[in-house]
Amino acid sequence: MSRWEPNARGRLEQAALELYAERGYDQTTVSEIAQRAGLTERTFFRHFTDKREVLFWGESALHELLVNRVANAPDGEAPIDSVQAALEGATGFFDGRLEHSRRRQAVIAANTALQERELIKLASMSAGIAEALRARGTKDPAASLTAEAGVSVFKIAFERWIDEANKRDLTRLIGDAFAELKSVTAGR
Amino acid sequence: MSRWEPNARGRLEQAALELYAERGYDQTTVSEIAQRAGLTERTFFRHFTDKREVLFWGESALHELLVNRVANAPDGEAPIDSVQAALEGATGFFDGRLEHSRRRQAVIAANTALQERELIKLASMSAGIAEALRARGTKDPAASLTAEAGVSVFKIAFERWIDEANKRDLTRLIGDAFAELKSVTAGR
Repeated sequence: MSRWEPNARGRLEQAALELYAERGYDQTTVSEIAQRAGLTERTFFRHFTDKREVLFWGESALHELLVNRVANAPDGEAPIDSVQAALEGATGFFDGRLEHSRRRQAVIAANTALQERELIKLASMSAGIAEALRARGTKDPAASLTAEAGVSVFKIAFERWIDEANKRDLTRLIGDAFAELKSVTAGR
Repeated sequence: MSRWEPNARGRLEQAALELYAERGYDQTTVSEIAQRAGLTERTFFRHFTDKREVLFWGESALHELLVNRVANAPDGEAPIDSVQAALEGATGFFDGRLEHSRRRQAVIAANTALQERELIKLASMSAGIAEALRARGTKDPAASLTAEAGVSVFKIAFERWIDEANKRDLTRLIGDAFAELKSVTAGR
């Protein structure tokens, strides 16, 4: 019998990250994740298709959010500004998830297959943004370059955000990285 | 008995690309590659560690070339200019390899595991360039942003180069993409 479980998704995510960190991703089973969360395997599969999706569902949601903002940018906005606005507008997604993001990154860094998956997700995010820019009339290579620049900025700002030494918020770090990108491409 | 085989490496590469295109990468064996090239498996393994390396050995060589140029940049050269010079200086690597590059790209595009491998190689190229920039005194995030921008420019210029419709040479396309990147990041 299926019953309502308070915050099952969050509990499963938390349990999975703990186990991936303790035992390694490859050594952890869905059964163990469910058990640690005090839930059934059936509940796990109601929320995630497999143990990998626990780490990557968020990137799909982020992808949608970014593409949607770029596709609906105000008329006349410069492409790079649309991408910056999209990224800055998506940081709410990470509110309260700093510790989670830190753990997730450590799990991914320890596993080549997961790193490859992460890179594929980021490449697909860049392709989605480029497509949205082209649909708004930005030509290539400008569309691809702008999308790639945005994803690079996000990646670098995100790494800085989860760095313990850094106390700035993600929106600020994204803004700083865009400013820095403008500066470095101008040869300064 | 090992004997001298004229251009064994090039023949093996050519045979492998043909077979990957005809049968699919997963369905092709080293034995078949050697046979198509009129060589032995033993000769294959004298040149490549496995069938995947036939597609990726060039990226390692390119990586070395780029990092070396950045590490030995003239004093006072702006980081982005060092990266551009490194990329433009490496295009000789692709002389006479347009058809080869086109085929290689088609094989990779048809196989998710190879795409992941390609992305890992590019990420490692970016990390290598960033490290060389930091060793020369460029701080982060400028070093990482510059390296990421360079790899993006290269990827996009390369895609344009292997596009049949495009007749410009790779060095020119890289220069154009850097100019375009400056323009888009400036919000134009």
